[in-house]
Amino acid sequence: MTKEKLYLYDTTLRDGQQTQGVQFSTDEKLTIARTLDALGVDYIEGGWPGANPTDSAFFDVAPNTRATMTAFGMTKRTGRSAENDDVLAGVMNANTPSVCLVGKSHDFHVTTALGITLDENLENIRASIAHIVASGREALFDAEHFFDGYKANPEYAVQCCKAAYDAGARWVVLCDTNGGTLPHEVGQITSAVIDAGIPGAHLGIHTHNDTGNAVAASLAAVDAGARQIQGTLNGLGERCGNANLCTLIPTLLCKEPYVSTLETGVTKEALAALTRASRLLDDILNRVPVKSAPYVGASAFAHKAGLHASAILKDPTTYEHIPPETVGNERIIPMSNQAGQSNLRKRLAEAGLEVEKGDPALTVILDEIKQREAQGYTYDTAQASFELLARRALGLLPEYFEVKRYKVTVERRKNRYDKMISLSEAVVVVKIGDEKKLSVSESLDGGGNDRGPVNALWRALAKDLGRYQHHIDDMKLVDFKVRITHGGTEAVTRVIIDSEDAQGRRWATVGVSPNIVDASFEALLEAVQWKLARDGARP
Amino acid sequence: MTKEKLYLYDTTLRDGQQTQGVQFSTDEKLTIARTLDALGVDYIEGGWPGANPTDSAFFDVAPNTRATMTAFGMTKRTGRSAENDDVLAGVMNANTPSVCLVGKSHDFHVTTALGITLDENLENIRASIAHIVASGREALFDAEHFFDGYKANPEYAVQCCKAAYDAGARWVVLCDTNGGTLPHEVGQITSAVIDAGIPGAHLGIHTHNDTGNAVAASLAAVDAGARQIQGTLNGLGERCGNANLCTLIPTLLCKEPYVSTLETGVTKEALAALTRASRLLDDILNRVPVKSAPYVGASAFAHKAGLHASAILKDPTTYEHIPPETVGNERIIPMSNQAGQSNLRKRLAEAGLEVEKGDPALTVILDEIKQREAQGYTYDTAQASFELLARRALGLLPEYFEVKRYKVTVERRKNRYDKMISLSEAVVVVKIGDEKKLSVSESLDGGGNDRGPVNALWRALAKDLGRYQHHIDDMKLVDFKVRITHGGTEAVTRVIIDSEDAQGRRWATVGVSPNIVDASFEALLEAVQWKLARDGARP
Repeated sequence: MTKEKLYLYDTTLRDGQQTQGVQFSTDEKLTIARTLDALGVDYIEGGWPGANPTDSAFFDVAPNTRATMTAFGMTKRTGRSAENDDVLAGVMNANTPSVCLVGKSHDFHVTTALGITLDENLENIRASIAHIVASGREALFDAEHFFDGYKANPEYAVQCCKAAYDAGARWVVLCDTNGGTLPHEVGQITSAVIDAGIPGAHLGIHTHNDTGNAVAASLAAVDAGARQIQGTLNGLGERCGNANLCTLIPTLLCKEPYVSTLETGVTKEALAALTRASRLLDDILNRVPVKSAPYVGASAFAHKAGLHASAILKDPTTYEHIPPETVGNERIIPMSNQAGQSNLRKRLAEAGLEVEKGDPALTVILDEIKQREAQGYTYDTAQASFELLARRALGLLPEYFEVKRYKVTVERRKNRYDKMISLSEAVVVVKIGDEKKLSVSESLDGGGNDRGPVNALWRALAKDLGRYQHHIDDMKLVDFKVRITHGGTEAVTRVIIDSEDAQGRRWATVGVSPNIVDASFEALLEAVQWKLARDGARP
Repeated sequence: MTKEKLYLYDTTLRDGQQTQGVQFSTDEKLTIARTLDALGVDYIEGGWPGANPTDSAFFDVAPNTRATMTAFGMTKRTGRSAENDDVLAGVMNANTPSVCLVGKSHDFHVTTALGITLDENLENIRASIAHIVASGREALFDAEHFFDGYKANPEYAVQCCKAAYDAGARWVVLCDTNGGTLPHEVGQITSAVIDAGIPGAHLGIHTHNDTGNAVAASLAAVDAGARQIQGTLNGLGERCGNANLCTLIPTLLCKEPYVSTLETGVTKEALAALTRASRLLDDILNRVPVKSAPYVGASAFAHKAGLHASAILKDPTTYEHIPPETVGNERIIPMSNQAGQSNLRKRLAEAGLEVEKGDPALTVILDEIKQREAQGYTYDTAQASFELLARRALGLLPEYFEVKRYKVTVERRKNRYDKMISLSEAVVVVKIGDEKKLSVSESLDGGGNDRGPVNALWRALAKDLGRYQHHIDDMKLVDFKVRITHGGTEAVTRVIIDSEDAQGRRWATVGVSPNIVDASFEALLEAVQWKLARDGARP
């Protein structure tokens, strides 16, 4: 049986940016676009060119993607031609191969929000889509409020879609803009649109999660025949978010009837990178990943109940609906039992540390991790700090040097031109063997700008490490993440630092303290120690 | 038309406790039980008496509830009678009016996990349920792995349910234990069970969110005729969680066909307390509430897109599927670079600043926001900083005082007992009128622990503000969030500080700088200025 193609349309960069508190930089948009392309979505909606500076900047530098890059905008306004609408021109000027325009399809919104006649709106849709098609691009029409519109005035809602389709739109996308339509209604209404003459192969579905049904409603539309799904990574989006592609993609690839009847651009290999893609977006947003997220959450395959955990050891299918590795996720079984130890041994082996089954050091390491996690540490991402912790427990970490003390000063005052300036200065005192080294550094970068106390500390620490100097000369701090978390009853700061060296290795270390400078310093020290240990430096 | 009763069965205290990292105390269980009872659920599953000490302790002191208190356990084991099974006896000893027993209904689990014959399992179900009924209690049977079992061996899965029903079970609950069954399958299979002779009025549905469809699958079972829904507050539960009652309840009370055909024990008044109930659970768990949660999330009625925000001002139904007050939630129109002037005026009005339509100050404020957001500021959450920015543009912010300079020192060294200690010290110099004030403070809390440089700065700033002192004496910093973002090409630090005062007001301010201490100081200053402005302090 030939499988029908189901198209995935990602709007993380556009509708995802409507999330409260989310504002992507151009660089972040580029990273996300590359991730989406590697995942295998068919369309990437990059933003609304002309509506804000970041969106315009993104299209100027948008990467070459296999996915069709799409600019978003709205249908032309009444009283001017499509050619003379400056907002539409701004969208066209992004020169994307595909353009998606949102337009009204609910009579109430046409007459009340726009204050134009129903016929004028139909003409705006028709002329705008025709304008895109005439320019040789692919056209999509987002039928805003389609489901509410259909319930109020089915004939008119369908007329709006037909106007776009007849004008040459490749896709007519049925949008549940307010997110209040339940899955059974979405299914019925999508069927009705197909019956009215727009083939399912030209219909898309765009849902929101206001009733917790965005995924189910998308599936209901596909069941009815729609062949494009719009959604976002991690269900980002206005209010309660859009349909979550991190949930939909594995369902489409692992569950019936979809596996047997439909195909998407996502390969099995790409699916196995889904958890990483989801975490990457959280990293960019500095969000704590949602543990309970379907498929990609850290708890999605965590088995806490004793009965479940013991059955899982016999046969994972007893309490797992799919194997976690399918989506690049992991099974978690409470650390205390056998499975916890074998997980640990696996992770140690990844770090090049082979430990025998039953070695008492395993219990010591597990206990230490538990205790430190209760204080606010995390070893999920800070793999290098995990490795150091294990090396310490195994007696495999030499004491390379000792930090005797450090001192950082941050000062803000007026300079002699009466301009407020700030400056940080750090002194670090280390003892290497019998030698005491005292280094000082300030925080100004090449342009004379203050880069802050952590930067000053790093420079002072890296300035003179004596016999180790050649090991750390090629080290660079590439990322710095700060989170307030809870250690016991008190709020503490957790700092995660990503470092890189000339060999292209990248490693993450963690520090925790109520004092943010101290937490940063701990993570810096760990970064240096990992580098020395991995380089096999001799103390 | 007479409405049919739909029963709500809450398992927050039992299945909810299977969430990774969740362990309720007895007191917390009592608080949650009272909240659930006030909400109007029909059953409260309190835990598994005998399985762990907290669950047993809860039943000893369980409150008198309108809802039916239910103890959870499992069907008797093979080789002993129901009367002589000590695990079952532990459950019965809790003396609840209702008892729910989980038992197998998937042939594979019977023979593989339990290692008994299919007939033995049927007999265990029958005898256990009969034992509960004979003791005068209401009996429920949780058919574990029912949907997977039905797909593997429909006859046997149904036989298990019939065994319980025929033995007198008030409810047979169809459980999708592994969470992998999609809504359309749940609907079809539930219909098949009803056709096989168990009336929908005796059928319950218990789903998990592993495919993001727990809510939709529950609704599909209700559509098919099931009349009991099992779920948890905030969708707590093992792996990806259970069906979220905070999502299901408003859907059942606000959406068709449920409003017209079914009735639950939840009144309109109780529904208006739903957001509070959801937040209360997060408080108990020390979790940050999920902003994007359907109905009850802080972003559920937040309108960021400019077009949406201006339409909402004309008529909230344009972009809201229900009025937020229905569930005790609030509408939010945040600022962002996508926002239009009408959005801005609404937000200014909320801050007590009435500005005429078309006032040129509106353009000035929008430009300023745009420019500062490009530098890394955000005004979505930092409402107080937004207000200060507007007041400055409108000439409504007096210069209360001037910070001449500050200096912070962070030091880590050994004390005289050779123990590493850290200490921060801050000096702040402000000018109030003609008076210069120099304050110094260190960062130790009551227990002698270093709370870091920002804490020291705050203490020094708040130590002596002269004529303003009485305004800030009741100020407290309650939260502190840090993220690394990009201002132009350079990474900068964004700090958001939440403050609170004795009147219970809570406000958020933002600071941005490459220097984290400087960014924090800016947010601190803004917090103080907002308080002075709102208190109407005289410079």
